[in-house]
Amino acid sequence: MVAAAGDRIGLPHGGGGVETEELILYIRRFFRKWAPENGGGVDLLDDGAFLPYGDKYLVFTIDTYTVKPVFFPGGDIGVLAAAGTLNDLAVMGARPIGFMDTLLIEEGFPRKSLEKIIESMAGIVNEAGAALLGGDIKVMPRGGVDEIAVTGFGVGVADRLLRKDGARIGDLVIVTGPVGDHGAVVLAHQLGFETSLRSDARYIGPAIEAAMNAGEIHAAKDPTRGGLAMALNEIAEASGVTIIVWGDKVPVREETRGIADIAGVDPLALASEGQAVIVAKRGDAEKVLSALHAAGYTEAAVIGEVVEEKMFPVLLETGVGGLRILEKPSGEIVPRIC
Amino acid sequence: MVAAAGDRIGLPHGGGGVETEELILYIRRFFRKWAPENGGGVDLLDDGAFLPYGDKYLVFTIDTYTVKPVFFPGGDIGVLAAAGTLNDLAVMGARPIGFMDTLLIEEGFPRKSLEKIIESMAGIVNEAGAALLGGDIKVMPRGGVDEIAVTGFGVGVADRLLRKDGARIGDLVIVTGPVGDHGAVVLAHQLGFETSLRSDARYIGPAIEAAMNAGEIHAAKDPTRGGLAMALNEIAEASGVTIIVWGDKVPVREETRGIADIAGVDPLALASEGQAVIVAKRGDAEKVLSALHAAGYTEAAVIGEVVEEKMFPVLLETGVGGLRILEKPSGEIVPRIC
Repeated sequence: MVAAAGDRIGLPHGGGGVETEELILYIRRFFRKWAPENGGGVDLLDDGAFLPYGDKYLVFTIDTYTVKPVFFPGGDIGVLAAAGTLNDLAVMGARPIGFMDTLLIEEGFPRKSLEKIIESMAGIVNEAGAALLGGDIKVMPRGGVDEIAVTGFGVGVADRLLRKDGARIGDLVIVTGPVGDHGAVVLAHQLGFETSLRSDARYIGPAIEAAMNAGEIHAAKDPTRGGLAMALNEIAEASGVTIIVWGDKVPVREETRGIADIAGVDPLALASEGQAVIVAKRGDAEKVLSALHAAGYTEAAVIGEVVEEKMFPVLLETGVGGLRILEKPSGEIVPRIC
Repeated sequence: MVAAAGDRIGLPHGGGGVETEELILYIRRFFRKWAPENGGGVDLLDDGAFLPYGDKYLVFTIDTYTVKPVFFPGGDIGVLAAAGTLNDLAVMGARPIGFMDTLLIEEGFPRKSLEKIIESMAGIVNEAGAALLGGDIKVMPRGGVDEIAVTGFGVGVADRLLRKDGARIGDLVIVTGPVGDHGAVVLAHQLGFETSLRSDARYIGPAIEAAMNAGEIHAAKDPTRGGLAMALNEIAEASGVTIIVWGDKVPVREETRGIADIAGVDPLALASEGQAVIVAKRGDAEKVLSALHAAGYTEAAVIGEVVEEKMFPVLLETGVGGLRILEKPSGEIVPRIC
């Protein structure tokens, strides 16, 4: 007897798109409390949770990383686990203070590879100024897990909390640089073709800090699984607004676009692991952009604007003056992308 | 060419004994900071980390669970992930306020099984009064992971911090009930024989709370991987004392002892997932024991005492008046025990 697809967990449930969202909403119902006292939890459906901490906030986040290949051009699963985790804190306005990891390793995994991964992970954690708080190591017999999976937890302190529901009508939308590079690199490897492209995986705290110091920021998000398309949809939905994206302003590398075209996916649905989407007050956007350029994010660009809620959360203005719906990605775009 | 064993990660690295400890000490060196400001992190090598929180402490912990079978007599991986995580908070004196989980699921895993696991997990989290703060879901293609692995993160608030270095000469050592049941159940299943034994997996916060309300508690620990042997060694080493264990006072069920005997392992090295070791001031031990009995931990017993540091951290007094060293377990006693 073959079970119906709905009876089984499929790759799309972990793809970070609509199926993941539905499963999270389902899971949430079993839990009595969705937020700590005076704080925010799974009620927010945001990158992290928060607790009041004196006159500041503590922000928490957790993610598991399963990227394949474990070592990819521009990084490895260690960089990804640390950057992905600490970036989730950064986009909520928090400066990371602590990091924890759990390693799920297949028996027989080379010790040298593990050491390289740890070194990469520590490099990012050290750069962000966070402390290693603790962790866990589990080893599964051969076949129990394919090489290695890493879980990252991060805690940070925010003077002011950025939330995805903060976008306001009139705001401008900025991206810190070309999108989709990480997704394209992993996709190219999985499809077995050569590319000179490197993953963008890095800690983006300095970008958020530069932006927050330069002007009034209303929301930020790192466009990982589901790419820019998912990130903008989440911000627009949570904020009750519509975002108009100017297609020709969105920075996408030639190679990334090429790989996306061959694979038949939208580059705007491909994961970035070292970029941020920043929603700024319109009058401050120029200052924020200059600050990003000065901080080394030379390809940062204004890519759209926040307007009043229309029929759809995100609309993409195409080069020829057309307008199309930029939907939340669904299905499994690239398995084991992060 | 066959690599030397040292070049590869082996099951013992995840066994929670000396090899795990060594690997953690190695990994730690790559990180510049080992503790947050005014707090404790991987410098403690304890069950959790902490941060000052007003006049209290926030305690954090993370663990990944890989138990096989996923459903076992007395529980499942969901119970284990929630109880294991929240128990690590409880033994540091903290009341859980938040929980996060990440699910690493194999494509094709039955949805009904996942729902059962979530229901179990939520049951424990709800019982402990914690909120679901967030989480992550990743799905790996078939063969990427064997069924499911779950990571649990917990945060709690402690009025007074219990640390494993708190045991003092003269203290008495109490255990909340029979040890090794979880390890024995999983071991029996893996060896393929029948047993009426059930895992002890449960939340032990009420035991710690009852003990702390009844008397002066100096340290506590949940004897999971590595069992009572590892837990007592860790407390003794961290506290710079020796613990004498009275072998005939340690509660071990007949079935557990039988399974351990057949498998040729020491029941004191088998994991419990619903018991705690509590080190109490000698004068208060009787009150603490009564409070535990009254709270339903009817098999709680005083099992030993803390003496000045001798040659070895833990010495086991055998029935016939002999004394032997109770060492930290090494090797992989039971793979995928938790």
